[in-house]
Amino acid sequence: MTRVDVQQKVLSENDRLAGALREKLRDSGVYCPNFISSPGAGKTLLLERTLQLLPRDTRVAVLTGDIQTDNDAKRLARYGFPVRQITTGGSCHLDARMIERALDEWKLETLQYLFIENVGNLVCPASYDLGENDKIVILSVTEGEDKPLKYPATFARAGLVIINKIDLLPYVRFDLAVAKENVRKVHPEVEILDVSSTARIGFDDWLSWLDSKRKQCLERSMAFVTP
Amino acid sequence: MTRVDVQQKVLSENDRLAGALREKLRDSGVYCPNFISSPGAGKTLLLERTLQLLPRDTRVAVLTGDIQTDNDAKRLARYGFPVRQITTGGSCHLDARMIERALDEWKLETLQYLFIENVGNLVCPASYDLGENDKIVILSVTEGEDKPLKYPATFARAGLVIINKIDLLPYVRFDLAVAKENVRKVHPEVEILDVSSTARIGFDDWLSWLDSKRKQCLERSMAFVTP
Repeated sequence: MTRVDVQQKVLSENDRLAGALREKLRDSGVYCPNFISSPGAGKTLLLERTLQLLPRDTRVAVLTGDIQTDNDAKRLARYGFPVRQITTGGSCHLDARMIERALDEWKLETLQYLFIENVGNLVCPASYDLGENDKIVILSVTEGEDKPLKYPATFARAGLVIINKIDLLPYVRFDLAVAKENVRKVHPEVEILDVSSTARIGFDDWLSWLDSKRKQCLERSMAFVTP
Repeated sequence: MTRVDVQQKVLSENDRLAGALREKLRDSGVYCPNFISSPGAGKTLLLERTLQLLPRDTRVAVLTGDIQTDNDAKRLARYGFPVRQITTGGSCHLDARMIERALDEWKLETLQYLFIENVGNLVCPASYDLGENDKIVILSVTEGEDKPLKYPATFARAGLVIINKIDLLPYVRFDLAVAKENVRKVHPEVEILDVSSTARIGFDDWLSWLDSKRKQCLERSMAFVTP
Protein backbone atom coordinates (compact mmCIF):
# COMPACT_ATOMS: atom_id res chain seq x y z
CA MET A 1 0.00 0.00 0.00
CA THR A 2 1.40 3.40 -0.89
CA ARG A 3 1.40 6.37 1.41
CA VAL A 4 -1.42 7.94 -0.59
CA ASP A 5 -3.53 4.77 -0.34
CA VAL A 6 -3.10 4.64 3.41
CA GLN A 7 -3.96 8.32 3.73
CA GLN A 8 -7.07 7.75 1.56
CA LYS A 9 -8.10 4.86 3.77
CA VAL A 10 -7.61 6.86 6.95
CA LEU A 11 -9.64 9.74 5.51
CA SER A 12 -12.48 7.55 4.25
CA GLU A 13 -12.71 5.76 7.62
CA ASN A 14 -12.78 9.21 9.22
CA ASP A 15 -15.54 10.31 6.83
CA ARG A 16 -17.62 7.28 7.76
CA LEU A 17 -17.35 8.04 11.47
CA ALA A 18 -17.95 11.75 10.87
CA GLY A 19 -21.07 10.93 8.88
CA ALA A 20 -22.44 8.91 11.79
CA LEU A 21 -21.67 11.74 14.21
CA ARG A 22 -23.35 14.24 11.87
CA GLU A 23 -26.51 12.15 11.87
CA LYS A 24 -26.54 11.91 15.66
CA LEU A 25 -26.05 15.66 15.98
CA ARG A 26 -28.80 16.34 13.45
CA ASP A 27 -31.25 14.02 15.19
CA SER A 28 -30.46 15.70 18.50
CA GLY A 29 -30.90 19.23 17.09
CA VAL A 30 -27.45 20.28 18.27
CA TYR A 31 -25.46 22.99 16.51
CA CYS A 32 -21.82 21.93 16.38
CA PRO A 33 -19.13 24.35 15.18
CA ASN A 34 -15.49 23.22 14.81
CA PHE A 35 -13.12 26.10 15.62
CA ILE A 36 -9.91 26.12 13.57
CA SER A 37 -7.02 28.59 13.68
CA SER A 38 -3.27 29.03 14.07
CA PRO A 39 -1.86 28.52 17.55
CA GLY A 40 -2.58 31.62 19.58
CA ALA A 41 -5.20 33.17 17.30
CA GLY A 42 -7.59 33.26 20.26
CA LYS A 43 -9.88 30.24 19.99
CA THR A 44 -9.97 29.57 23.72
CA LEU A 45 -10.54 33.16 24.78
CA LEU A 46 -13.31 33.52 22.18
CA LEU A 47 -14.96 30.43 23.64
CA GLU A 48 -14.50 31.72 27.19
CA ARG A 49 -16.23 35.01 26.35
CA THR A 50 -18.95 33.16 24.45
CA LEU A 51 -19.68 30.84 27.40
CA GLN A 52 -19.76 33.89 29.64
CA LEU A 53 -22.19 35.81 27.44
CA LEU A 54 -24.60 33.06 26.40
CA PRO A 55 -27.87 33.06 28.37
CA ARG A 56 -27.39 31.08 31.61
CA ASP A 57 -29.94 28.44 30.62
CA THR A 58 -28.09 27.61 27.39
CA ARG A 59 -27.24 23.93 27.16
CA VAL A 60 -23.72 23.83 25.77
CA ALA A 61 -20.81 21.42 26.04
CA VAL A 62 -17.24 21.84 24.84
CA LEU A 63 -14.59 19.47 23.50
CA THR A 64 -11.17 21.05 23.31
CA GLY A 65 -8.19 19.53 21.53
CA ASP A 66 -4.49 19.98 22.19
CA ILE A 67 -1.37 17.98 21.56
CA GLN A 68 -0.36 18.32 25.19
CA THR A 69 -1.73 19.94 28.38
CA ASP A 70 -5.28 20.38 29.60
CA ASN A 71 -4.83 24.14 30.04
CA ASP A 72 -7.73 24.99 27.76
CA ALA A 73 -10.17 22.62 29.44
CA LYS A 74 -9.27 24.18 32.79
CA ARG A 75 -9.87 27.68 31.41
CA LEU A 76 -13.18 26.69 29.85
CA ALA A 77 -14.47 24.69 32.81
CA ARG A 78 -14.72 27.86 34.90
CA TYR A 79 -17.98 28.83 33.19
CA GLY A 80 -19.97 25.94 34.61
CA PHE A 81 -20.62 24.01 31.39
CA PRO A 82 -19.36 20.48 30.71
CA VAL A 83 -15.90 20.54 29.11
CA ARG A 84 -13.69 17.70 28.02
CA GLN A 85 -10.06 17.87 26.94
CA ILE A 86 -8.91 15.71 24.06
CA THR A 87 -5.14 15.34 24.25
CA THR A 88 -3.99 14.10 20.86
CA GLY A 89 -0.54 13.04 22.08
CA GLY A 90 1.34 14.30 19.04
CA SER A 91 -1.37 14.37 16.40
CA CYS A 92 -1.69 17.75 14.70
CA HIS A 93 -5.50 17.63 14.36
CA LEU A 94 -8.64 16.17 15.86
CA ASP A 95 -10.33 13.31 14.01
CA ALA A 96 -13.83 11.87 14.16
CA ARG A 97 -12.76 8.87 16.28
CA MET A 98 -11.44 11.20 18.98
CA ILE A 99 -14.75 13.08 19.01
CA GLU A 100 -16.76 9.85 19.17
CA ARG A 101 -14.71 8.62 22.13
CA ALA A 102 -14.84 11.92 23.97
CA LEU A 103 -18.60 12.19 23.61
CA ASP A 104 -18.84 8.79 25.29
CA GLU A 105 -21.96 8.81 27.43
CA TRP A 106 -22.82 12.50 26.97
CA LYS A 107 -26.48 12.77 25.97
CA LEU A 108 -26.48 14.89 22.82
CA GLU A 109 -30.26 15.34 22.91
CA THR A 110 -29.89 17.37 26.11
CA LEU A 111 -27.64 19.91 24.32
CA GLN A 112 -28.20 22.94 22.10
CA TYR A 113 -24.53 23.47 21.23
CA LEU A 114 -21.47 21.29 21.04
CA PHE A 115 -18.37 23.47 20.58
CA ILE A 116 -15.25 21.74 19.29
CA GLU A 117 -11.95 23.59 19.63
CA ASN A 118 -9.43 22.00 17.29
CA VAL A 119 -5.64 21.79 17.72
CA GLY A 120 -3.94 25.09 16.82
CA ASN A 121 -3.00 24.48 13.20
CA LEU A 122 -4.18 26.23 10.05
CA VAL A 123 -3.42 23.28 7.76
CA CYS A 124 -4.21 19.73 8.85
CA PRO A 125 -7.49 20.11 10.81
CA ALA A 126 -9.28 21.24 7.64
CA SER A 127 -8.85 17.77 6.08
CA TYR A 128 -10.61 15.93 8.91
CA ASP A 129 -14.40 16.06 8.98
CA LEU A 130 -15.62 15.77 12.59
CA GLY A 131 -19.30 15.65 11.72
CA GLU A 132 -19.54 19.33 12.64
CA ASN A 133 -22.11 21.70 11.11
CA ASP A 134 -19.54 24.39 10.33
CA LYS A 135 -15.84 24.92 10.43
CA ILE A 136 -15.31 28.36 11.95
CA VAL A 137 -11.92 29.72 10.98
CA ILE A 138 -10.37 32.37 13.20
CA LEU A 139 -7.73 34.72 11.83
CA SER A 140 -6.01 37.11 14.20
CA VAL A 141 -5.00 40.57 12.95
CA THR A 142 -1.47 39.91 14.21
CA GLU A 143 -1.03 37.17 11.59
CA GLY A 144 -1.11 39.28 8.42
CA GLU A 145 -3.66 39.74 5.64
CA ASP A 146 -2.24 37.13 3.30
CA LYS A 147 -3.07 34.06 5.38
CA PRO A 148 -6.29 33.17 3.47
CA LEU A 149 -4.22 32.96 0.26
CA LYS A 150 -1.50 30.90 1.91
CA TYR A 151 -3.91 28.45 3.59
CA PRO A 152 -6.69 28.38 0.99
CA ALA A 153 -7.98 24.87 1.73
CA THR A 154 -8.86 25.87 5.29
CA PHE A 155 -10.53 29.17 4.39
CA ALA A 156 -12.38 27.61 1.44
CA ARG A 157 -14.09 25.17 3.85
CA ALA A 158 -15.09 27.79 6.43
CA GLY A 159 -18.76 28.26 7.29
CA LEU A 160 -17.76 31.52 8.98
CA VAL A 161 -14.53 33.48 9.26
CA ILE A 162 -13.90 35.43 12.44
CA ILE A 163 -11.25 38.14 12.29
CA ASN A 164 -10.09 38.30 15.89
CA LYS A 165 -8.07 40.68 18.09
CA ILE A 166 -9.33 43.73 16.19
CA ASP A 167 -8.50 45.80 19.30
CA LEU A 168 -4.85 45.41 18.19
CA LEU A 169 -5.43 47.00 14.76
CA PRO A 170 -3.82 50.34 15.77
CA TYR A 171 -0.58 48.57 16.72
CA VAL A 172 -0.04 46.17 13.81
CA ARG A 173 0.26 46.43 10.04
CA PHE A 174 -2.94 44.72 9.00
CA ASP A 175 -5.33 46.05 6.39
CA LEU A 176 -8.75 44.70 7.35
CA ALA A 177 -10.24 45.42 3.90
CA VAL A 178 -7.41 43.56 2.13
CA ALA A 179 -7.74 40.64 4.56
CA LYS A 180 -11.45 40.37 3.73
CA GLU A 181 -10.74 40.59 0.00
CA ASN A 182 -8.28 37.74 0.42
CA VAL A 183 -10.82 35.65 2.32
CA ARG A 184 -13.32 36.25 -0.49
CA LYS A 185 -10.79 35.32 -3.18
CA VAL A 186 -10.76 31.78 -1.83
CA HIS A 187 -14.35 31.72 -0.56
CA PRO A 188 -16.54 34.38 -2.20
CA GLU A 189 -19.76 34.00 -0.18
CA VAL A 190 -18.48 33.30 3.32
CA GLU A 191 -19.67 35.52 6.13
CA ILE A 192 -16.95 37.40 8.05
CA LEU A 193 -17.28 38.82 11.56
CA ASP A 194 -14.86 41.25 13.23
CA VAL A 195 -14.32 40.40 16.87
CA SER A 196 -12.17 41.23 19.86
CA SER A 197 -12.53 38.88 22.80
CA THR A 198 -10.47 41.05 25.14
CA ALA A 199 -12.30 44.28 24.23
CA ARG A 200 -15.63 42.41 23.78
CA ILE A 201 -16.23 43.82 20.32
CA GLY A 202 -18.51 42.04 17.85
CA PHE A 203 -20.20 39.71 20.32
CA ASP A 204 -23.75 40.84 19.50
CA ASP A 205 -23.32 39.72 15.90
CA TRP A 206 -21.48 36.56 16.89
CA LEU A 207 -24.09 35.51 19.44
CA SER A 208 -26.93 36.22 16.96
CA TRP A 209 -25.12 34.11 14.39
CA LEU A 210 -24.88 31.25 16.87
CA ASP A 211 -28.51 31.64 17.88
CA SER A 212 -29.78 31.54 14.30
CA LYS A 213 -27.71 28.41 13.64
CA ARG A 214 -29.08 26.81 16.80
CA LYS A 215 -32.64 27.52 15.65
CA GLN A 216 -31.97 26.06 12.20
CA CYS A 217 -30.60 22.88 13.75
CA LEU A 218 -33.54 22.59 16.12
CA GLU A 219 -36.04 23.04 13.27
CA ARG A 220 -34.22 20.48 11.15
CA SER A 221 -34.30 17.90 13.95
CA MET A 222 -38.02 18.51 14.47
CA ALA A 223 -38.65 18.09 10.74
CA PHE A 224 -36.98 14.69 11.05
CA VAL A 225 -38.99 13.40 14.00
CA THR A 226 -42.40 14.66 12.78
CA PRO A 227 -42.83 13.45 9.22
CA MET B 1 1.42 -2.00 5.75
CA THR B 2 -0.15 -0.08 8.58
CA ARG B 3 -0.38 3.69 8.70
CA VAL B 4 2.41 3.76 11.29
CA ASP B 5 4.67 1.60 9.10
CA VAL B 6 4.16 3.88 6.12
CA GLN B 7 4.84 6.95 8.24
CA GLN B 8 8.01 5.31 9.58
CA LYS B 9 9.15 4.56 6.06
CA VAL B 10 8.49 8.11 4.89
CA LEU B 11 10.37 9.49 7.88
CA SER B 12 13.37 7.17 7.48
CA GLU B 13 13.62 7.99 3.75
CA ASN B 14 13.47 11.65 4.76
CA ASP B 15 16.21 11.11 7.34
CA ARG B 16 18.44 9.51 4.72
CA LEU B 17 18.06 12.48 2.37
CA ALA B 18 18.47 14.95 5.23
CA GLY B 19 21.68 13.20 6.30
CA ALA B 20 23.09 13.61 2.79
CA LEU B 21 22.12 17.30 2.76
CA ARG B 22 23.71 17.78 6.19
CA GLU B 23 26.99 16.36 4.91
CA LYS B 24 26.95 18.63 1.87
CA LEU B 25 26.26 21.67 4.04
CA ARG B 26 29.01 20.69 6.47
CA ASP B 27 31.55 20.17 3.70
CA SER B 28 30.60 23.56 2.24
CA GLY B 29 30.90 25.35 5.59
CA VAL B 30 27.36 26.73 5.31
CA TYR B 31 25.26 27.55 8.37
CA CYS B 32 21.68 26.47 7.70
CA PRO B 33 18.89 27.39 10.12
CA ASN B 34 15.32 26.09 9.60
CA PHE B 35 12.79 28.68 10.80
CA ILE B 36 9.62 27.20 12.30
CA SER B 37 6.60 28.99 13.76
CA SER B 38 2.83 29.37 13.68
CA PRO B 39 1.38 31.14 10.66
CA GLY B 40 1.88 34.87 11.13
CA ALA B 41 4.47 34.72 13.92
CA GLY B 42 6.79 36.82 11.79
CA LYS B 43 9.24 34.48 10.06
CA THR B 44 9.30 36.39 6.78
CA LEU B 45 9.65 39.84 8.33
CA LEU B 46 12.45 38.57 10.60
CA LEU B 47 14.24 37.26 7.51
CA GLU B 48 13.64 40.52 5.63
CA ARG B 49 15.21 42.57 8.44
CA THR B 50 18.05 40.08 8.73
CA LEU B 51 18.85 40.26 5.02
CA GLN B 52 18.71 44.03 5.28
CA LEU B 53 21.08 44.21 8.25
CA LEU B 54 23.66 41.56 7.31
CA PRO B 55 26.89 43.02 5.88
CA ARG B 56 26.46 43.57 2.14
CA ASP B 57 29.16 41.06 1.24
CA THR B 58 27.43 38.23 3.11
CA ARG B 59 26.78 35.24 0.89
CA VAL B 60 23.30 34.08 1.82
CA ALA B 61 20.51 32.27 -0.01
CA VAL B 62 16.96 31.63 1.10
CA LEU B 63 14.45 28.82 0.53
CA THR B 64 10.96 29.72 1.63
CA GLY B 65 8.09 27.24 1.95
CA ASP B 66 4.39 27.81 1.65
CA ILE B 67 1.39 25.70 0.78
CA GLN B 68 0.29 28.25 -1.81
CA THR B 69 1.51 31.62 -3.14
CA ASP B 70 5.01 32.95 -3.72
CA ASN B 71 4.33 36.08 -1.64
CA ASP B 72 7.23 35.39 0.70
CA ALA B 73 9.77 34.82 -2.07
CA LYS B 74 8.71 38.14 -3.62
CA ARG B 75 9.14 39.93 -0.29
CA LEU B 76 12.53 38.35 0.33
CA ALA B 77 13.88 38.80 -3.20
CA ARG B 78 13.91 42.58 -2.75
CA TYR B 79 17.14 42.39 -0.75
CA GLY B 80 19.27 41.21 -3.65
CA PHE B 81 20.09 37.68 -2.42
CA PRO B 82 19.03 34.50 -4.22
CA VAL B 83 15.60 33.33 -3.01
CA ARG B 84 13.57 30.35 -4.08
CA GLN B 85 9.96 29.58 -3.21
CA ILE B 86 8.98 26.01 -2.43
CA THR B 87 5.23 25.65 -2.90
CA THR B 88 4.23 22.45 -1.14
CA GLY B 89 0.82 22.22 -2.84
CA GLY B 90 -1.08 21.12 0.25
CA SER B 91 1.67 19.62 2.38
CA CYS B 92 1.85 21.11 5.86
CA HIS B 93 5.66 21.02 6.13
CA LEU B 94 8.85 21.03 4.09
CA ASP B 95 10.73 17.76 3.69
CA ALA B 96 14.29 16.93 2.72
CA ARG B 97 13.35 15.95 -0.85
CA MET B 98 11.85 19.42 -1.44
CA ILE B 99 15.06 21.05 -0.19
CA GLU B 100 17.24 18.81 -2.34
CA ARG B 101 15.19 19.67 -5.44
CA ALA B 102 15.10 23.39 -4.69
CA LEU B 103 18.87 23.54 -4.18
CA ASP B 104 19.28 22.04 -7.63
CA GLU B 105 22.32 23.64 -9.22
CA TRP B 106 23.01 26.19 -6.45
CA LYS B 107 26.66 25.94 -5.44
CA LEU B 108 26.60 25.52 -1.66
CA GLU B 109 30.34 26.14 -1.36
CA THR B 110 29.78 29.74 -2.50
CA LEU B 111 27.45 30.38 0.46
CA GLN B 112 27.89 31.27 4.13
CA TYR B 113 24.22 30.91 5.05
CA LEU B 114 21.27 28.98 3.72
CA PHE B 115 18.07 30.17 5.42
CA ILE B 116 15.08 27.85 5.23
CA GLU B 117 11.68 29.30 6.11
CA ASN B 118 9.28 26.44 6.78
CA VAL B 119 5.51 26.35 6.27
CA GLY B 120 3.67 28.19 9.04
CA ASN B 121 2.82 25.33 11.38
CA LEU B 122 3.97 24.69 14.94
CA VAL B 123 3.42 20.92 14.77
CA CYS B 124 4.37 18.97 11.65
CA PRO B 125 7.59 20.71 10.48
CA ALA B 126 9.38 19.62 13.67
CA SER B 127 9.15 15.95 12.60
CA TYR B 128 10.97 16.46 9.29
CA ASP B 129 14.73 16.81 9.39
CA LEU B 130 15.88 18.98 6.49
CA GLY B 131 19.59 18.53 7.15
CA GLU B 132 19.63 21.95 8.82
CA ASN B 133 22.09 22.90 11.57
CA ASP B 134 19.39 24.30 13.85
CA LYS B 135 15.67 24.57 14.04
CA ILE B 136 14.93 28.15 15.11
CA VAL B 137 11.48 28.37 16.66
CA ILE B 138 9.75 31.74 16.64
CA LEU B 139 7.03 32.49 19.15
CA SER B 140 5.12 35.74 18.86
CA VAL B 141 3.95 37.51 22.03
CA THR B 142 0.43 37.64 20.58
CA GLU B 143 0.19 33.84 20.79
CA GLY B 144 0.21 33.40 24.57
CA GLU B 145 2.79 32.09 27.04
CA ASP B 146 1.55 28.51 27.09
CA LYS B 147 2.52 27.56 23.53
CA PRO B 148 5.82 25.82 24.50
CA LEU B 149 3.83 23.48 26.77
CA LYS B 150 1.20 22.83 24.11
CA TYR B 151 3.70 22.19 21.30
CA PRO B 152 6.53 20.62 23.30
CA ALA B 153 8.01 18.49 20.47
CA THR B 154 8.76 21.59 18.43
CA PHE B 155 10.25 23.60 21.29
CA ALA B 156 12.25 20.62 22.57
CA ARG B 157 14.03 20.42 19.18
CA ALA B 158 14.83 24.13 18.95
CA GLY B 159 18.45 25.24 18.66
CA LEU B 160 17.25 28.76 19.46
CA VAL B 161 13.92 30.26 20.46
CA ILE B 162 13.12 33.78 19.27
CA ILE B 163 10.34 35.60 21.08
CA ASN B 164 9.10 37.98 18.43
CA LYS B 165 6.90 41.09 18.26
CA ILE B 166 8.02 42.27 21.70
CA ASP B 167 7.02 45.80 20.64
CA LEU B 168 3.42 44.58 21.16
CA LEU B 169 3.99 43.61 24.82
CA PRO B 170 2.19 46.73 26.17
CA TYR B 171 -0.97 45.80 24.24
CA VAL B 172 -1.32 42.07 24.91
CA ARG B 173 -1.56 39.80 27.92
CA PHE B 174 1.74 38.01 27.68
CA ASP B 175 4.11 37.45 30.58
CA LEU B 176 7.58 37.24 29.05
CA ALA B 177 9.10 35.64 32.16
CA VAL B 178 6.41 32.94 32.26
CA ALA B 179 6.84 32.31 28.53
CA LYS B 180 10.58 31.76 29.06
CA GLU B 181 9.94 29.48 32.03
CA ASN B 182 7.62 27.45 29.81
CA VAL B 183 10.24 27.22 27.06
CA ARG B 184 12.76 25.99 29.65
CA LYS B 185 10.33 23.43 31.05
CA VAL B 186 10.47 21.58 27.73
CA HIS B 187 14.03 22.55 26.80
CA PRO B 188 16.10 23.65 29.81
CA GLU B 189 19.31 24.82 28.07
CA VAL B 190 17.99 26.49 24.95
CA GLU B 191 19.00 30.08 24.28
CA ILE B 192 16.15 32.60 23.96
CA LEU B 193 16.32 35.96 22.21
CA ASP B 194 13.75 38.77 22.45
CA VAL B 195 13.18 40.43 19.10
CA SER B 196 10.93 42.89 17.34
CA SER B 197 11.36 43.02 13.59
CA THR B 198 9.12 46.06 13.17
CA ALA B 199 10.80 48.04 15.97
CA ARG B 200 14.24 46.52 15.18
CA ILE B 201 14.84 45.38 18.73
CA GLY B 202 17.25 42.55 19.52
CA PHE B 203 19.02 42.46 16.17
CA ASP B 204 22.52 42.98 17.58
CA ASP B 205 22.22 39.77 19.59
CA TRP B 206 20.55 37.90 16.76
CA LEU B 207 23.16 38.91 14.20
CA SER B 208 26.00 37.99 16.61
CA TRP B 209 24.36 34.62 17.16
CA LEU B 210 24.23 34.03 13.41
CA ASP B 211 27.81 35.18 12.97
CA SER B 212 29.16 32.85 15.66
CA LYS B 213 27.26 29.95 14.10
CA ARG B 214 28.67 30.83 10.68
CA LYS B 215 32.21 30.83 12.11
CA GLN B 216 31.67 27.44 13.78
CA CYS B 217 30.45 25.96 10.50
CA LEU B 218 33.36 27.42 8.58
CA GLU B 219 35.88 26.04 11.10
CA ARG B 220 34.22 22.64 11.02
CA SER B 221 34.40 22.49 7.23
CA MET B 222 38.08 23.45 7.32
CA ALA B 223 38.78 20.76 9.91
CA PHE B 224 37.26 18.29 7.46
CA VAL B 225 39.32 19.25 4.42
CA THR B 226 42.65 19.53 6.29
CA PRO B 227 43.09 16.27 8.21
